[in-house]
Amino acid sequence: MRLTQTVQKGGCAAKVAASELRKILGGLTFPTKPPELLVDGSLFDDAAIYKVSEELALVQTLDFFTPIVDSPAWFGKVAAANALSDVYAMGGIPKTALAILAFPIATMDAEVVQQVLQGGCDLLQEAGVPLVGGHSIDDDSLKFGLSVTGYVHPKRVWTNAGAKPGDVLILTKALGTGTVTAALKRSAITEAEMPDVLASMAQLNNAGETLGELTSAIHAATDVTGFGLAGHASQMARASQVEFRLKAKSLPAFVRAFQCLKEGFLTKAHASNRAYTAEWLSFGAEVSEEEKLLCFDPQTSGGLLLSVEEERAEAVLEKLRVRFPRAVRIGEVAAAGKPGLRVE
Amino acid sequence: MRLTQTVQKGGCAAKVAASELRKILGGLTFPTKPPELLVDGSLFDDAAIYKVSEELALVQTLDFFTPIVDSPAWFGKVAAANALSDVYAMGGIPKTALAILAFPIATMDAEVVQQVLQGGCDLLQEAGVPLVGGHSIDDDSLKFGLSVTGYVHPKRVWTNAGAKPGDVLILTKALGTGTVTAALKRSAITEAEMPDVLASMAQLNNAGETLGELTSAIHAATDVTGFGLAGHASQMARASQVEFRLKAKSLPAFVRAFQCLKEGFLTKAHASNRAYTAEWLSFGAEVSEEEKLLCFDPQTSGGLLLSVEEERAEAVLEKLRVRFPRAVRIGEVAAAGKPGLRVE
Repeated sequence: MRLTQTVQKGGCAAKVAASELRKILGGLTFPTKPPELLVDGSLFDDAAIYKVSEELALVQTLDFFTPIVDSPAWFGKVAAANALSDVYAMGGIPKTALAILAFPIATMDAEVVQQVLQGGCDLLQEAGVPLVGGHSIDDDSLKFGLSVTGYVHPKRVWTNAGAKPGDVLILTKALGTGTVTAALKRSAITEAEMPDVLASMAQLNNAGETLGELTSAIHAATDVTGFGLAGHASQMARASQVEFRLKAKSLPAFVRAFQCLKEGFLTKAHASNRAYTAEWLSFGAEVSEEEKLLCFDPQTSGGLLLSVEEERAEAVLEKLRVRFPRAVRIGEVAAAGKPGLRVE
Repeated sequence: MRLTQTVQKGGCAAKVAASELRKILGGLTFPTKPPELLVDGSLFDDAAIYKVSEELALVQTLDFFTPIVDSPAWFGKVAAANALSDVYAMGGIPKTALAILAFPIATMDAEVVQQVLQGGCDLLQEAGVPLVGGHSIDDDSLKFGLSVTGYVHPKRVWTNAGAKPGDVLILTKALGTGTVTAALKRSAITEAEMPDVLASMAQLNNAGETLGELTSAIHAATDVTGFGLAGHASQMARASQVEFRLKAKSLPAFVRAFQCLKEGFLTKAHASNRAYTAEWLSFGAEVSEEEKLLCFDPQTSGGLLLSVEEERAEAVLEKLRVRFPRAVRIGEVAAAGKPGLRVE
């Protein structure tokens, strides 16, 4: 059985679109936010930061989805890596995880469900995070994910608002999970033909732990997920009131990414990310249509985009590459007239 | 639109059975449990306790389900109260909540989803808990729930293992949500005919906050949910190595509970809870079949079962009744030959 064939929409494609969600959430009266809530994640996108003491804050996030790959164990790993990523993206260290599990009891082998959970547990073991609880329900289709709580020093939270002119932009993983997994779902390729994509999506985004003292060179960070590089980079540039200048030729892509884009394996998000970023993003004349699509490609468990102090950027990159072989410098930060993203 | 008619199984009935779950979880290699994990909730049943410092531990739980009532706002309230309950049942104070939301975008009115979320937000406001994040997906049927984190003093965690001979047993809510909501789903009654059940399921289990200094009179506690009073009371008696003696005539029931049981509105859990408890539970000759079924009735957002020091039991009951009008003494704890439950 191929898991991607058991669901209509896989991975982050099943996520409710931001525009739809804002319509629903816009009319709500939320519970009062206490002063301890330093960062609010209630627009359902990011992690929240809740202050416990002067030295400690909790980073909290929750993520679950339908199968984006065929093998149960890979699906479990990818879902776990994806959920943990939001904690890492804020500079936190994950400490506990609760499982969210739904599956059709009557028709799905217990062994399949077990492999999904084991994949998740294996990733948690790698992250040093215990599975402390969860909830499971009988449902029409398989879903798996985690609610993760981490620790962070309240004064050392990474945000997407600290990028400074002169900074170097580093991306820790290659791009193209959206188009390659779309090709997989439509049976144009097999899972065996995308080992780099599987390994990347199942990789922990623990850049902070990898960098040690060099973390002080990170001025801003975000994880690249459903809105693609274009969406998350332009959000970060706008939050920092700067311009990001990227080189299209330096963008890292999975082996089959350009081929899949060329053959038209696109998702709804390719179009919606293009529309979403139209106002803040411009391309040079030499950027090809496939390179543009790579910028709009929605990532599942994508890499971290880091804005790094120029002097230490090479040292950061060297250290990152021990764990993130595809980590690469993709551009620079410029002082801006109009904050946004320029790709040349 | 009646929400209960949009799903196959409502509320805790959609929960994966404990026996099924143990089969799947039994074969897993879990991530290493650190010493900070004081109570492990990874068999998916209860809340976990994670020690932060000598004075502070986190209580963490996660719960979500399909509609058990028809009105969106009531469903949101019940789901929120049910998720918060596990934190209260361990003596904790809930601090943050993340939402788990799934709904069919194409066929469900945004307004319905909004009312569900607003119901949840209203309950969180009552509990003093901010909604700090969450995740939503496009799915075949509506599901809603929360991942909740609370605070508790690591030395003041309520467990189900501390009941002492001589203690008085107090139940804070009436019984019968399983049979009455089964009648609702099968259209034998309307939501308007079960106001006591709705109010009870949407009530916060914040007994600890209500009791103040009297909390030191609580020797053990559990919340009564899917396994019914019989299941949770016998678990507590066995964990405490004592016998619980309950009086069938003193069990609090919702107005329509006995009628619904008599008319045969049963769930699968009525039978499985009977089988599950057979070894540790005995009934006196005068206990009627409906009274037995009430003991087996699976509760959604049920009450707390408290084992209370005898001298202060009346004071505890009086204070509880301010917020829990149906709170009542249902029996006593005896030293046991064989730990378990006796109903007479």
